Amino acid sequence: MTLLDGVHLVEACLDAGGSLHTLVRATSADASVLFALSERSPGVRRICLSDALFADLSPVATPSGILAEAGWFMPAPHPGQALVVVLEAIQDPGNLGAMLRTAAAAGATRAILSPGCHDPWSPKALRGGQGAQFVLPVETAVDLTDWLSHFAGDCLALTLEGSSSLYDRDLARPLAIIVGNEGAGLSPAVCHAADARVRIPMHGRVESLNAGAALAVALFEAARQRS
Amino acid sequence: MTLLDGVHLVEACLDAGGSLHTLVRATSADASVLFALSERSPGVRRICLSDALFADLSPVATPSGILAEAGWFMPAPHPGQALVVVLEAIQDPGNLGAMLRTAAAAGATRAILSPGCHDPWSPKALRGGQGAQFVLPVETAVDLTDWLSHFAGDCLALTLEGSSSLYDRDLARPLAIIVGNEGAGLSPAVCHAADARVRIPMHGRVESLNAGAALAVALFEAARQRS
Repeated sequence: MTLLDGVHLVEACLDAGGSLHTLVRATSADASVLFALSERSPGVRRICLSDALFADLSPVATPSGILAEAGWFMPAPHPGQALVVVLEAIQDPGNLGAMLRTAAAAGATRAILSPGCHDPWSPKALRGGQGAQFVLPVETAVDLTDWLSHFAGDCLALTLEGSSSLYDRDLARPLAIIVGNEGAGLSPAVCHAADARVRIPMHGRVESLNAGAALAVALFEAARQRS
Repeated sequence: MTLLDGVHLVEACLDAGGSLHTLVRATSADASVLFALSERSPGVRRICLSDALFADLSPVATPSGILAEAGWFMPAPHPGQALVVVLEAIQDPGNLGAMLRTAAAAGATRAILSPGCHDPWSPKALRGGQGAQFVLPVETAVDLTDWLSHFAGDCLALTLEGSSSLYDRDLARPLAIIVGNEGAGLSPAVCHAADARVRIPMHGRVESLNAGAALAVALFEAARQRS
């Protein structure tokens, strides 16, 4: 079961074929919104709560007035050439959600998360994902070195000191892009399990990018080469 | 005056030619680190505080044990073909800092911020920027429509429904990339002041990117075309 806060997430869940068990509205929220959502989810239980009770129940600090309890489901794999996002120890839920959102927008086919990653279905990660978790298959608590050794494609570790430039690689082939924890970077074991370490060439006077920005640049360069 | 938390930011400030007025260390912090920093900043005032007092003084929730008070300065303009980042109403300090970090890494020549943006010199924005504010000239509280009308180059607004693809543009010419507030997007006035609205083609089942990811993709595509 997953708790979804806000109309956007609930709609994204329904759009992706998910089902709702319960819809909750705060008394001050627009009743017609709840009605429209329940129309799309026959048999859903509907509850109206006082604003104070709703705020207690809501998993987020600024409740939207609409909550849904949804069944958990794994989205169907994205068709096409493999473009896998492999994340190690991404601990901030907002960053994790944003990275999944970027992956879904770039056409990634799945996401593979190490045991040290935050729960991608937590309220903050869902908010950051803006619906990505409903369309991108996400596997959690995966042994990355084992997974990488079985992947039939190029496994590229994004690092600051990679030996080759991202732009010199053929990214149209089946591909896994590996990104590590913001502070610590990738572990030596995962770096070693990759086929190559690649860097994004920097052109300025700061030699770093945050993990989310680096992933966005790499994924959309892959998408550009494939289109 | 600006308060800098942590060795990394203080070093970035010194690397960029900034000067320190005061260095503060918590008693539990490594004294040799403070010594190395004060060696680089002759005449700096040095203070050692109990951990409790230090925590009270620190502007961040998880103090590093090293603080510095630095003089404010505007970095020299980055040489080369103009690549300007124009930000409208970016209210989250962490997001703003990360966007400036991305801009500095991509070789942006300056950043122009609307009145509705968060203070780029606040502790959280500095932490997100990881030193970007010391190397990238940032102008705040700028009237964007006025600024855009005087800019001698292409002014491109990044929007979801832009009429042309980012990848179909010549980004090697003098360029300003305009990004708006995460929730509200760009205001109609600023959109209207741009020469064109461009979109990043999406290849997945989510039709959105967060503002930071979109900026990273656009800036590094410009850098790729220029390199």
